[in-house]
Order: sequence, then C-alpha cells, then structure tokens
Amino acid sequence: MNSKILASSTITGQKVTNMKDENIGDIQDLMIDPKESEVMYAVLSFGGFLGIGSKYFAVPMEALQFSDDGKTVKMDVDKEKLENAPSFDKDNWPRTADSEFLNTVYGHYGYKNKRRTRSMA
Amino acid sequence: MNSKILASSTITGQKVTNMKDENIGDIQDLMIDPKESEVMYAVLSFGGFLGIGSKYFAVPMEALQFSDDGKTVKMDVDKEKLENAPSFDKDNWPRTADSEFLNTVYGHYGYKNKRRTRSMA
Repeated sequence: MNSKILASSTITGQKVTNMKDENIGDIQDLMIDPKESEVMYAVLSFGGFLGIGSKYFAVPMEALQFSDDGKTVKMDVDKEKLENAPSFDKDNWPRTADSEFLNTVYGHYGYKNKRRTRSMA
Repeated sequence: MNSKILASSTITGQKVTNMKDENIGDIQDLMIDPKESEVMYAVLSFGGFLGIGSKYFAVPMEALQFSDDGKTVKMDVDKEKLENAPSFDKDNWPRTADSEFLNTVYGHYGYKNKRRTRSMA
C-alpha cells in the first residue's frame, strides 16, 4: 500500500483556502509528539480572514485536506466557527498537550481525539 | 496525561549527536502522512560524520532521543551502521512510503514498522 507523504517543510508555510477558494490562513507549524511519531495538531494563523493577527489556532490534521503534491490545502470551515476556535498567543505556545486541550481542539472541529487513547491502548 | 511536544520547525535543523556526544548529523526534515497524522520517518544528513554529503537518510523517529526542550537530539548508532543505512539522493526524495521501504528503514535500526499495520487495523 502506498501513501502520499509530505515533508514538514513543504506543509509549513502553505496557504489554506476554504471551500469557496478564499484564502483563509497559513500553516505556521506542526506540533509533534516525538515519542509517538504523531502530529498532535497543526498551528494555523487566520490573520487576514479573521482580522486578528496575534493569535495562533490549533487545528486537527483531519480538518485539513492536502492535495497529493501538497501544493493546495483546503479547510471546510466558516468564519463563525473560527471566531470561537481554540487559540493561543503567538508568544506563548503550549509545550505539552494534555488530553483536555486536545479534546477541546478536536471536538471544536467535529473530530474525535484518537491520539491519547491510541497511545494508552 | 501530559506529553512533551515539539514544533516541526524546532525539530528540523537540529544537530544530532551520538552517545559519545560527537556531532554526527542534522535533521533535515520530517516526512508526514497527512491522512494518518503520523511522522513516517525523519530525514537526516550525516555529511561530516560519514564524509558524504549528497545523500539523505531515512531514520525512524524511535531512533532519535529528544530532550524535553528539543534542544538536544541523540542517536545511538555507530558509523558502520550508518554506512549501509537506507538512503536516497538529496534531489530525489521518495514521495510515497510503501511498506517495503518503511520495513527496510525500521528494520535497519532494529525497530518494527508499526505505521502501516496500525492504519490497516
């Protein structure tokens, strides 16, 4: 079985568009759990779209649709959803990922946090 | 449960030392399966250590020991092990990760490739 893979350096810096092809933000970084080899969440900025630039948003990878070449990234989300989405200050990123924070992040976008439950299985 | 997490931008560019604290290489990139939110492997260069600069090496994340702050990365490996390790040309990275390639990469460093079997479970 083959699976398309992308370099983290290709993913970060990518523009993200919504389903109307409007540019909504950028992928700033990926937060990695090195012990589990997992991407906990992506870090996005929605500066232009939301009109605020000082916050970063934690977004599940499942919420991002990557093209096979990694050159386009889509996210099916509206402005209202983003306005009350889990975010943090640019200068104060969480350095741990407790289950409560992850559950909030995944739940907000309608996904289940499979991370911690899988690693504890 | 808390787990230390690191930004992919912190991980890439890090120097890697062996158990004798000798600088053996650098982390160039992380290869990500966006659908599974998994790090398939890290891409390392061992230029100075091996005396070759045109190849990159695929290394399981399990083989890298990250300090909690991500500022030091250790790899318990000797030169002989690296000399016949799975590598690829800098300008010709694999864009898919077939199980055979991954099994070779993981097997070489004494790890089991849990990736594909887990996602197919």
